[in-house]
Amino acid sequence: MDGYKVRVGVNGYGVIGKRIADAVAAQEDMELAGVADIVADWRIQPARRRGFAVFAAAADAGAAMRAQGVDIAGALADLVAQSDVIIDCTPKKIAAANIEIYRGAGKKFIVQGGEKHATTGHSFVAASSYASALDRQSTRVVSCNTTSIVRTLGALKRAGLLRRARGTLLRRATDPWESHLGGVMNTLVPEANIPSHQGPDAQSVDPDLDVVTMAVKTPETLAHVHYWTVQMTRPAGKQEVLEAFAVCPRLLPIRMSEGLSAINAVKEWTADAGRLRGDLYEVAFWEDMLTVEGDELFYAYMVDNQAIVIPETIDAIRALTGVEREADASMRKTDRALGIPLRIG
Amino acid sequence: MDGYKVRVGVNGYGVIGKRIADAVAAQEDMELAGVADIVADWRIQPARRRGFAVFAAAADAGAAMRAQGVDIAGALADLVAQSDVIIDCTPKKIAAANIEIYRGAGKKFIVQGGEKHATTGHSFVAASSYASALDRQSTRVVSCNTTSIVRTLGALKRAGLLRRARGTLLRRATDPWESHLGGVMNTLVPEANIPSHQGPDAQSVDPDLDVVTMAVKTPETLAHVHYWTVQMTRPAGKQEVLEAFAVCPRLLPIRMSEGLSAINAVKEWTADAGRLRGDLYEVAFWEDMLTVEGDELFYAYMVDNQAIVIPETIDAIRALTGVEREADASMRKTDRALGIPLRIG
Amino acid sequence: MDGYKVRVGVNGYGVIGKRIADAVAAQEDMELAGVADIVADWRIQPARRRGFAVFAAAADAGAAMRAQGVDIAGALADLVAQSDVIIDCTPKKIAAANIEIYRGAGKKFIVQGGEKHATTGHSFVAASSYASALDRQSTRVVSCNTTSIVRTLGALKRAGLLRRARGTLLRRATDPWESHLGGVMNTLVPEANIPSHQGPDAQSVDPDLDVVTMAVKTPETLAHVHYWTVQMTRPAGKQEVLEAFAVCPRLLPIRMSEGLSAINAVKEWTADAGRLRGDLYEVAFWEDMLTVEGDELFYAYMVDNQAIVIPETIDAIRALTGVEREADASMRKTDRALGIPLRIG
Amino acid sequence: MDGYKVRVGVNGYGVIGKRIADAVAAQEDMELAGVADIVADWRIQPARRRGFAVFAAAADAGAAMRAQGVDIAGALADLVAQSDVIIDCTPKKIAAANIEIYRGAGKKFIVQGGEKHATTGHSFVAASSYASALDRQSTRVVSCNTTSIVRTLGALKRAGLLRRARGTLLRRATDPWESHLGGVMNTLVPEANIPSHQGPDAQSVDPDLDVVTMAVKTPETLAHVHYWTVQMTRPAGKQEVLEAFAVCPRLLPIRMSEGLSAINAVKEWTADAGRLRGDLYEVAFWEDMLTVEGDELFYAYMVDNQAIVIPETIDAIRALTGVEREADASMRKTDRALGIPLRIG
Repeated sequence: MDGYKVRVGVNGYGVIGKRIADAVAAQEDMELAGVADIVADWRIQPARRRGFAVFAAAADAGAAMRAQGVDIAGALADLVAQSDVIIDCTPKKIAAANIEIYRGAGKKFIVQGGEKHATTGHSFVAASSYASALDRQSTRVVSCNTTSIVRTLGALKRAGLLRRARGTLLRRATDPWESHLGGVMNTLVPEANIPSHQGPDAQSVDPDLDVVTMAVKTPETLAHVHYWTVQMTRPAGKQEVLEAFAVCPRLLPIRMSEGLSAINAVKEWTADAGRLRGDLYEVAFWEDMLTVEGDELFYAYMVDNQAIVIPETIDAIRALTGVEREADASMRKTDRALGIPLRIG
Repeated sequence: MDGYKVRVGVNGYGVIGKRIADAVAAQEDMELAGVADIVADWRIQPARRRGFAVFAAAADAGAAMRAQGVDIAGALADLVAQSDVIIDCTPKKIAAANIEIYRGAGKKFIVQGGEKHATTGHSFVAASSYASALDRQSTRVVSCNTTSIVRTLGALKRAGLLRRARGTLLRRATDPWESHLGGVMNTLVPEANIPSHQGPDAQSVDPDLDVVTMAVKTPETLAHVHYWTVQMTRPAGKQEVLEAFAVCPRLLPIRMSEGLSAINAVKEWTADAGRLRGDLYEVAFWEDMLTVEGDELFYAYMVDNQAIVIPETIDAIRALTGVEREADASMRKTDRALGIPLRIG
Repeated sequence: MDGYKVRVGVNGYGVIGKRIADAVAAQEDMELAGVADIVADWRIQPARRRGFAVFAAAADAGAAMRAQGVDIAGALADLVAQSDVIIDCTPKKIAAANIEIYRGAGKKFIVQGGEKHATTGHSFVAASSYASALDRQSTRVVSCNTTSIVRTLGALKRAGLLRRARGTLLRRATDPWESHLGGVMNTLVPEANIPSHQGPDAQSVDPDLDVVTMAVKTPETLAHVHYWTVQMTRPAGKQEVLEAFAVCPRLLPIRMSEGLSAINAVKEWTADAGRLRGDLYEVAFWEDMLTVEGDELFYAYMVDNQAIVIPETIDAIRALTGVEREADASMRKTDRALGIPLRIG
Repeated sequence: MDGYKVRVGVNGYGVIGKRIADAVAAQEDMELAGVADIVADWRIQPARRRGFAVFAAAADAGAAMRAQGVDIAGALADLVAQSDVIIDCTPKKIAAANIEIYRGAGKKFIVQGGEKHATTGHSFVAASSYASALDRQSTRVVSCNTTSIVRTLGALKRAGLLRRARGTLLRRATDPWESHLGGVMNTLVPEANIPSHQGPDAQSVDPDLDVVTMAVKTPETLAHVHYWTVQMTRPAGKQEVLEAFAVCPRLLPIRMSEGLSAINAVKEWTADAGRLRGDLYEVAFWEDMLTVEGDELFYAYMVDNQAIVIPETIDAIRALTGVEREADASMRKTDRALGIPLRIG
């Protein structure tokens, strides 16, 4: 397969889809077949600006898109036909119908974390379940929250430190682009049920994780923040924990002492660094806040919910197609193309 | 001391002071000697409206207050002289100097949770430390966050269920009246250190509590919300936990299923009920969200940070003066006068 | 009609309905026949707490309400039968159907500002259109924004000062009780069309007003704020303008210089004053900010959107039933019962 | 001066300074001599990442900066010596002292809008006052709000349409990077005085403008929004107004009908377009909202307060140094380098 580039189609050009399209275009071993959507307003324009092929995801959408000056390369079926792998980034109910299309065309595909595990029978986080995704027809890249949980707890598990983890998840209420359409104001909104779904969802990637979560919606749009109490297998030093995190890609230590003392400051830092849209692909954990007391470990991190699953999706493409059979090698390729990790200077 | 009314002076007529003044005035066994402050604007007007005696807390404050139509009954020293107990509700650095005044006048006094335990050598939550406060010269009513922790964990302890508790505290950023002067916007601000100070502070009331807390500031003004993971001494049923809470005053079960699904809705409910300023003196915990899994207990509650310490302060007055020697009896008097607990209908 | 009390039914016990019910109950010449709604959760409980007769506004609602311990006095038709006047405070589409019920029963009724003028053919603000409402079968109490416009511009008109007025309306995004269900976050949302509808709506009360408005939604829940540029008929002094406002009920001068420098501070002041729910029935304009330059007048005021129409509705009841034929006399009765105006001390 | 590049030093590497440094580096006829600051945390790191020479703006700052891995190229005096023009982006009180340094070194310099007009005796907006800035030693680039006013009203004036303009300015409360340090929450904060200072400030650039403004702080961090009522010299068609705006650089028509219906959506659009930090240098006015009624004009626009003065500052450098004597030519150079105007697709 020397020099062969995997042809990737992105169905759904929203918050996640537009980022995946840019990330695919940045990979040396991939080629963007195009993007499909139904919107005709400003949201489709980045695709046009970048010269991506745009497909009409619904029969009646093409006319409106053309009226706004968007050249239409074909219908969804055309994009599917021209792709080796389809990344489905459409809203929940639409995705279910799409899957039949992908299956009917005999194409590999990836769904997002809003779908259930049963949809594909496999849930993906690169550092934990790359091998089992190799050569499959499909997988599900888990949600931003779940991805961050599997990355961090997986790192502790591989270091032999994890006994059980209990987390409180502070969720951003809505994404910035749509904060005029809905959100919560001057309140906190607890999720009605304890445990929240993220614990079992993490176990869909790694059944060994003993994890319970509680979740609450907060009135901000920037990122989620998770607080963890971890019962370790034994008393360990802080340095040992930091080393367990250091060997895991996409876990980024940041420091209160360097002024990164709130999630808005961290976002400014990533924007200053030149990251497109200011995206933070890493789980950024506060290194100086992290505390070990005997066999208990306490820490907090932030999750850029729009960005964190992007590198995972790129890796999932390689796993499904088998163009790269080693997780570490895939992650290195992805991270080099996306400028991960972010260096402070 | 039949029929004798304890004369109470309130120094500092801010968010806490104005509420304590109203609460004192509502007790049958207390009399408000007056309030002292230095502000001359709208903030002092509720005292004038209610006919409270107003004292100038600083030498140069009286003139400005008189210019705004406020009759000045005297200086701070006069209020101290006319009081059996002084409740100090002034900002942190001012309180330290005031204490010398109270001591010099041989008066009993109560400071707020912003002060250190060492200031008075005693920390007060009615259900846990009333007896040890009896006849003392002074005590410290702990902060709103700490009060809620001691109320809830104390209840579990008395039921023999508490082994250790780990909490994540979501703090409101600022009080509503001053949200134009400062606050945080569209961000989450983790407290720099883990553990946060509330755990040790709870231990200043009850050293037996095994409690660790992490805290984060959120962009809202209404109330704090705490999430807890409790390791119990043994597996217990949910009903057993609810009964442990039920016998403790000022713990109020609320239900998601009744629409009280966020802190703004709860505040509307308390305002509808006719509570002055919409105050919620109780720790309101979501009964249907509370979950027991084996020997682990998970729950969340909200803390109206402006109101929760008010009944405790009233009880502390009785403890210091000894006019009521039983904690339960004092709490019943306080709660009857303040309309605690809030009934749903 | 000596001693006769108008029997008032309130259909819809939401943000406006619950306030009207309390206000009716506070009038000496009115009697609350009861309230009707379909909710069974915490929102109906204030009616139960106050001992109001509760009617089930929909056939299937009664069972759920009874299950929550609410005694049901009957169906909507029963409430209508027992009332002289019905105040409809239901959501927009429901109101239209209700009107047929009221008409069918031959009852007088009042709708809220969400309905169109044509619904009743008459639009009501006490100071401007009381006389023309006398003995009518129905009227529409205009919206909070429009009420404030008619109150203020009407006062300038009666003083012979108004030529034309251009306003920018900053709207609160949602009401506090429902800010967990929707709202806007960290943004400003301009109303798509200029002029916005409030100008023509004010003209439905007083066609003489030359008024154009632009509106924008802001991320707060407390109150609207309006900014005005008024072309006067001639150069006038600031004192002359203040006097024009002073003779109009429900226009309350407040001052930046007294610390009432933002709408949150004003709301704290009204809550401190003991107003139920902290309601501000008055249009509160900043007296010291108001500026006259030649024949131009500039000012800003705040509108407590949950409260401002309550006294107008009470007056509208008297106008429709004719129990009081003078606008001024009705307003005095209403205002005395509601504690209007709010005094600073 | 063929091929000569103006050497520009930037003193103060904050919200404005870091953007000016990037913009200078993007100009073909300029060279960045370096940046000076005193911070040693994440905020200085973008300079290091880009390879900019970093100077210690205070004697004691260098050590801390070096400790964080920042190479220090010298002191502020060194930067001044190596620059043809200094852009002062320091906080208000510091700027005053700096000016003496620049004058002492005989260097040209530019201050920001936070300084008074008298500081330099000249106030700059490229489209209005470029010619009078030619060869001066210094000028002041006016504030973001004032820049937007002069751009838009200047365009109407040049088209012979402007008689007088009355504006309501909704100000963002704080910048995103520092929204954890302060801001306003769930409130609106009127500026205490009418008129606000922006009207007279616009007249410091163009004394002919008849403009009065009122201002209010709103709880968001993204951008200012201005609403205008303009009395034109005569009735005009909407098309005529749009043409007046079209010929003025840096006025960008956007449309509600294309989904750009709130300032958060506009910011997402600029970030999607690949603008560094998502900056919007243009005044973006809603074309479909703009309304003409007879001789009155109504419109609203948004002002990205962090970005709008950047192109003006670049033009001011050319004006002071005389390397380009025509305003239009300078603006074309600046705009080409910065990708202005933003095209929809």
